[in-house]
Amino acid sequence: MVHSKQIVLKSHRRCCWIDVTGEVQRAIDASGITTGVCTVTCLHTTAAMTINENADPDVATDFFAKLASMVPQDPKFLHCEGNSDSHIKASLVGLSVQISVESSRLVLGTWQSIYFCEFDGPRNRKCSVTILGE
Amino acid sequence: MVHSKQIVLKSHRRCCWIDVTGEVQRAIDASGITTGVCTVTCLHTTAAMTINENADPDVATDFFAKLASMVPQDPKFLHCEGNSDSHIKASLVGLSVQISVESSRLVLGTWQSIYFCEFDGPRNRKCSVTILGE
Amino acid sequence: MVHSKQIVLKSHRRCCWIDVTGEVQRAIDASGITTGVCTVTCLHTTAAMTINENADPDVATDFFAKLASMVPQDPKFLHCEGNSDSHIKASLVGLSVQISVESSRLVLGTWQSIYFCEFDGPRNRKCSVTILGE
Repeated sequence: MVHSKQIVLKSHRRCCWIDVTGEVQRAIDASGITTGVCTVTCLHTTAAMTINENADPDVATDFFAKLASMVPQDPKFLHCEGNSDSHIKASLVGLSVQISVESSRLVLGTWQSIYFCEFDGPRNRKCSVTILGE
Repeated sequence: MVHSKQIVLKSHRRCCWIDVTGEVQRAIDASGITTGVCTVTCLHTTAAMTINENADPDVATDFFAKLASMVPQDPKFLHCEGNSDSHIKASLVGLSVQISVESSRLVLGTWQSIYFCEFDGPRNRKCSVTILGE
Repeated sequence: MVHSKQIVLKSHRRCCWIDVTGEVQRAIDASGITTGVCTVTCLHTTAAMTINENADPDVATDFFAKLASMVPQDPKFLHCEGNSDSHIKASLVGLSVQISVESSRLVLGTWQSIYFCEFDGPRNRKCSVTILGE
């Protein structure tokens, strides 16, 4: 069985992450799939997907501050839109995540949530969710 | 349904990316799969896979220049082949990408292409493509 | 067909990788799946999954030394547990890997192994393995 859905998002800052775990779980609920794998892919080139801690918001603050210092907006970049840093961060963090599904639930660790990572907001964004299984 | 294919590539520089979107789409066309997920995995340890912008070639120039400054070839690395930087970049960028398939087409954003990332060329390279779906 | 398994690990240092290729292959053997895709996902937020060289252990030494210098433990991080570096490295390296399966075997390059990457050990750890195919 295959079930697909598109998640629509709106980011409100240049760099932030947005928890999409609930939306992804709802796609699994709607699919009727009990066992399989769920893939979430970002449909943009200046944003990414990751899984990280959902308890302390300081983890996000540290994550985006460190990425900004590692890959700053640099006037020496050639790409004329001024967002080469966002493109580079997207490829470093990665465009998609895969999570096992068992008993109709995402198999995530206690502290894990699925995040859409905005590196060039604020913007309207989309990601695709596909669940394969039985 | 499952369909597999191997993509064979030749890189001509030490660091560059090669657009494989067309080859991956042709694997989907050959598979007869209309809905599912396509996985592309690099079969080497000094190269990677990513998704990034297909419009302005300066994005690639900025990406590889920044990675070279973050992870330079450093004589202090222990690995005797002198390509530890390539191994490290491979794990940072990631070895595989996953893209949803709908109506027999890769679900990619307007500006997205799938790239094989060479970090230790020129070399002959391979990646595996597997499409799961119905 | 879908087959799932959990891999249980124990890390003995703060930062190291642990080869799980044999355990993943055994999950495929047990599944009876001959062709498909295998997904391995780390169930923690201070560890990751990657694929890298299995021949020279100096590759691991260089990898972890470079990551430590790129993302050091920094007293200016806000997250009070003192392991923001581990959370950041986890998202940079990525939480999951996908490998094609053909003729009941992982499709890996000659030098590739699958590694669980510990960034905040020593700890007891888990990752989920799911194989989809026929």
